[in-house]
Amino acid sequence: MKNRRAFLQTSGLLAAGAALPSAKDSNMKFIHHVLFWAKNPGNQAEVTQLRNAIVELGKLPMIQMVHVGSPVVTEFDKSVTDGSYTVSVVMVFESAAKENEYLHHPLHLKFINENKHLWGKVSVTDSIA
Amino acid sequence: MKNRRAFLQTSGLLAAGAALPSAKDSNMKFIHHVLFWAKNPGNQAEVTQLRNAIVELGKLPMIQMVHVGSPVVTEFDKSVTDGSYTVSVVMVFESAAKENEYLHHPLHLKFINENKHLWGKVSVTDSIA
Repeated sequence: MKNRRAFLQTSGLLAAGAALPSAKDSNMKFIHHVLFWAKNPGNQAEVTQLRNAIVELGKLPMIQMVHVGSPVVTEFDKSVTDGSYTVSVVMVFESAAKENEYLHHPLHLKFINENKHLWGKVSVTDSIA
Repeated sequence: MKNRRAFLQTSGLLAAGAALPSAKDSNMKFIHHVLFWAKNPGNQAEVTQLRNAIVELGKLPMIQMVHVGSPVVTEFDKSVTDGSYTVSVVMVFESAAKENEYLHHPLHLKFINENKHLWGKVSVTDSIA
């Protein structure tokens, strides 16, 4: 993968600052994983509002990659899996500083203010490689 | 990003089947997030053995991207963050089928058998976009 990256860089296909995450080069330095439990999981309008707001938030430019998903519980890991949440958000950042920039961004604060009535519980797991 | 991808595809830089996850194209379909709590977190040799075994496991070809990290607790999210774990592993798969392939792979089963004495607790969160 290093060769492909080097080639792309040399050939000018990677603009300055452009990230090119690729399989196995583990360009996932910093992970911010948030689980939301909807206050009213049976209220589809509320769940949709929360989910849409998260998807919008994921467009902020300092976020390298984003995943917004729903629970999966496999047979294999059933006994150790928590599938009780409503929405899972995985954000990848290039650094802790980028995550910090995101956390304090006005649109993130606005997201919290406008949507916090929709969740009963939220849980965060951050990790750095 | 669509344009960049289209260009790379047209120009033949993306070989058939090659994945090019990029910012905001959200090429993170399926997330498998595992947290390990070491049985003896103060035993650096054990923690290193566990961590190294996980890094090795992350090289399996059906895993699209992998992150092996340590806890971060930010001031911002302190009240809702669990930073008590020892090792965090985020694996990205193209599909639930690829994760299933990984879970049942002989090297994954071998990893569990050879290292399960090193962790006191393990917790899994899976999600699909």
